[in-house]
Amino acid sequence: MKTDIEIAQTSHGVPITDIAEKLNLSTDEVEQYGHLKAKIKTSVLNRLKDRPDGKLILVTSINPTNAGEGKSTVTIGLGDALNALGKQAVIALREPSLGPVMGTKGGATGGGYSQVMPMADINLHFTGDMHAITTANNTLSALIDNHIYQGNELQIDPRRVIWKRVLDINDRSLRQTTIGLGGLKQGVPREEQFEITVASEIMAVICLAKNLADLTSRLSNIIIGYTFQNEPITVGDLNAEGVLTLLLKDALKPNLVQTLYQTPAFIHGGPFGNIAHGCNSVVATKMALKLGDFVVTEAGFGADLGAEKFLDIKVPILEKAPDAIVIVATIRALKMHGGVPHDELTIENPEALKLGVANLEKHVQNMQKYGLPVIVAVNQFTSDTDKELALLTRLCEDLGAIVEITSSWSDGYQGSLALAEKVISIIEEDSSDFEAVYSFGMTIEEKAETIVKELYGGDGVFFTDKAKEQIEIFKKYGWDRLPICMAKTQFSLSDDPKKVGRPSEFTVVIRELVPKMGAGFIVAFTGDIMTMPSLPKEPAALKMSVDSNGSIKGLF
Amino acid sequence: MKTDIEIAQTSHGVPITDIAEKLNLSTDEVEQYGHLKAKIKTSVLNRLKDRPDGKLILVTSINPTNAGEGKSTVTIGLGDALNALGKQAVIALREPSLGPVMGTKGGATGGGYSQVMPMADINLHFTGDMHAITTANNTLSALIDNHIYQGNELQIDPRRVIWKRVLDINDRSLRQTTIGLGGLKQGVPREEQFEITVASEIMAVICLAKNLADLTSRLSNIIIGYTFQNEPITVGDLNAEGVLTLLLKDALKPNLVQTLYQTPAFIHGGPFGNIAHGCNSVVATKMALKLGDFVVTEAGFGADLGAEKFLDIKVPILEKAPDAIVIVATIRALKMHGGVPHDELTIENPEALKLGVANLEKHVQNMQKYGLPVIVAVNQFTSDTDKELALLTRLCEDLGAIVEITSSWSDGYQGSLALAEKVISIIEEDSSDFEAVYSFGMTIEEKAETIVKELYGGDGVFFTDKAKEQIEIFKKYGWDRLPICMAKTQFSLSDDPKKVGRPSEFTVVIRELVPKMGAGFIVAFTGDIMTMPSLPKEPAALKMSVDSNGSIKGLF
Repeated sequence: MKTDIEIAQTSHGVPITDIAEKLNLSTDEVEQYGHLKAKIKTSVLNRLKDRPDGKLILVTSINPTNAGEGKSTVTIGLGDALNALGKQAVIALREPSLGPVMGTKGGATGGGYSQVMPMADINLHFTGDMHAITTANNTLSALIDNHIYQGNELQIDPRRVIWKRVLDINDRSLRQTTIGLGGLKQGVPREEQFEITVASEIMAVICLAKNLADLTSRLSNIIIGYTFQNEPITVGDLNAEGVLTLLLKDALKPNLVQTLYQTPAFIHGGPFGNIAHGCNSVVATKMALKLGDFVVTEAGFGADLGAEKFLDIKVPILEKAPDAIVIVATIRALKMHGGVPHDELTIENPEALKLGVANLEKHVQNMQKYGLPVIVAVNQFTSDTDKELALLTRLCEDLGAIVEITSSWSDGYQGSLALAEKVISIIEEDSSDFEAVYSFGMTIEEKAETIVKELYGGDGVFFTDKAKEQIEIFKKYGWDRLPICMAKTQFSLSDDPKKVGRPSEFTVVIRELVPKMGAGFIVAFTGDIMTMPSLPKEPAALKMSVDSNGSIKGLF
Repeated sequence: MKTDIEIAQTSHGVPITDIAEKLNLSTDEVEQYGHLKAKIKTSVLNRLKDRPDGKLILVTSINPTNAGEGKSTVTIGLGDALNALGKQAVIALREPSLGPVMGTKGGATGGGYSQVMPMADINLHFTGDMHAITTANNTLSALIDNHIYQGNELQIDPRRVIWKRVLDINDRSLRQTTIGLGGLKQGVPREEQFEITVASEIMAVICLAKNLADLTSRLSNIIIGYTFQNEPITVGDLNAEGVLTLLLKDALKPNLVQTLYQTPAFIHGGPFGNIAHGCNSVVATKMALKLGDFVVTEAGFGADLGAEKFLDIKVPILEKAPDAIVIVATIRALKMHGGVPHDELTIENPEALKLGVANLEKHVQNMQKYGLPVIVAVNQFTSDTDKELALLTRLCEDLGAIVEITSSWSDGYQGSLALAEKVISIIEEDSSDFEAVYSFGMTIEEKAETIVKELYGGDGVFFTDKAKEQIEIFKKYGWDRLPICMAKTQFSLSDDPKKVGRPSEFTVVIRELVPKMGAGFIVAFTGDIMTMPSLPKEPAALKMSVDSNGSIKGLF
């Protein structure tokens, strides 16, 4: 088997203008970035506003494990298979963050024969969206500190600045810093914690804004800190929403690329799945829905985080609910949920598989609570045995779930044809009857309780004193009418990453709330959420190179 | 008169593919970035390696003042005029840094009717070169701190790390920071000074590398700090040159745009003019020389910094010396050199003008020392009187210099036709007989003395004890055989910014030397050189906006 970068580098693709033409986009609407990438102008949404939306398929998964689930691979394989079956299929994915690419994760463009291309470009600078967000975020930081330095008319308390600088780099050393040192001419000293770019509220804003005017309005609402009297200060108070919009105007335009089989794919936006909502942009998904008959998209982490936020935060803005949910599971990961350690996953173990299926079961039931039809996609690995595959299929049927095996990583679109046929058939039944699990009008406590009890399977929520105080303040400003964005470990349905499978009898502790008024949600922090990753002892970066002919090595 | 952004937004330009076609570039060699920008593959240099170079015109200036000289405007106007006279003219400029655009400076794309376009794009993210350099620079920083954290096999002394993080933002608060705080899991505490991206050695490396292999080799040579035993550590010691090359492979490709009159213009690279060499990239200039018959390029600051470094640092790598030098002067700026305060510049003052011409005289003589023919371009302002213009013309003729008035800001290419004719005529005389003022084999002391005595007009150099110690160390490693890059104020021929005109009887103090082994020069620091600018009380950024139709305001 070739490596991902080898497969990617042997495939040349067709000019992106051909892909755009297939989608009936006019030359004027397409801004090429090299031969294989393009930004599509948002004016397309106006032109097609009366065209009915295509069908929407949301790909999500069980709680992720170190064994890997291959959600992107399944998403791409399913799109390719729908395309091969004669449907106008369009894929909508998040764009990768450079930090993890340089660390251990490698790229985020699928794998094997289910990839979007150009793989190296997408994983590196792509069309500059991440850099635009980094720049806008840090320009705002410079404007805040400059305001404080130049007389501080707004009376911003340097100890209460919550807006943090970001870099798209895994950089442990910037987690806790002091800035503004050096005396009278070098600024006002204060503490600063750098985060990774995808954790910036600007990333969430880009992904939830409907258009340029909405972008400006959301940016204006962002709270950057509090005065000495503890009153909130917004970007609008600083008059900075104009320059931020200017810096972000191109980043708002969706990026069009293609799969190895020339299926059109939008790769746009990539907010964190814990402190943000973890889905690609509303603008890109909407554009895909206007241009395609079947849109396959993906949400971050497991269905408890990614799908929940897609359905409760993104859908109200997108004004379109999924027509089907695909939950990706692997036998390896289910065995981990059944208690098998990482180095024994290739050993056949039906008992552990049976135990681990409890995790899948809960996610299937959760999606059904939203009134959505569910298909389980078993992403096949070479180590899976026939006995295990047969067992898992039967267990899924026992749950009342439709199930299909997929092997797009090794077999390309052909590995997902059966899955695609089942997806088409379930969508033709038109059984989607979407209903949110909570309403925005509920109190913060009620919304959090609903998520924890209904979806996580917990007993309830414990709010720390700090969180309780914050809820009172938020009520005063009317912020309690926003959806809740749970910042929780992705590894468990509970807030304890070690509790695999389907834990019960647990209480989720919410220790702090952060208002994200630009994004339009309240982040509820449970446990320790890391917003600046770090590099391992042997970073992937140090294996990467490019020779004098431009041939790339070590990117995977 | 319209503002620059108004003029820029009313001009639509032709597709960049048309400009590329005019230069006989193949479709395959052109990577479009939207309709009006493109990166050109460096393979063009191989294809045309046997074609003779075009003629090279270097535009420089007197010592800059707050009154402004308009060097870019003259460069663009001259290119347009050469084009209008039927020459295949190509312009090669530096690309702007976003930090100053957001501060007070505004854009760096010319002005009035002498502009390159698309103005807003070039001043903002352009094709992402600055962001790629920021990312590569800071990825290297993260790798250094991670190495120290993960056992520090190379024994890097955290107090001796000289590699600094950068942002392309004017951010006073990051000038002096402490990082790695927060305890055992958050890195190793140390001091850090952020600089602006254009001050990164990577920017200088991009601008001096001949090709991808040379880029890797130069990156590998960069010194990032010293061990506890004070031995130098390079990027190569960290094995990081591969990933840095990967991150920079597209940034090495020159960017092609057009002027308002469709003259092709390469805008590529923008290193600082004090701690670096202040010229656009070797790759872009060489490409322009292979594609054009007349290439007009520019060097940073006045001729004492920009032109000197162009001739002593860039020319040996470019393997091509200028065929003519254009020194830009304005009556306003010369009056400032004659002692007139900023608010009295619009008052006619022939006496001050006469005094101020001494500054111009020195630069003319300096360029003649290199054996190069010189033309003085008087960039006309509306406040200039006929009497002053006639006087300046006569004074230049007294100096034995060819002189011409240019008015491209208000008149476009027509304002530079007379200048262009004189440039053509001087080039046809073929009188360029280039000779460097110093040889690399001289000692550091001799090289610095030569620059100060021959070009600045000073009495000599005073080396601090620290600098003397460094010279001994540099000799040990053989670094003393490199050219000197003087980091000096741009406002005076001396190292004292207050000494306008043509100062004499001064000694330049060199307080510190820094080896830039990737760029291939030794920076000699004189006085205080600011490598992280700051925002003013009312930043230009806060006046910028973009409306829902994408129309931009406040960018100038």
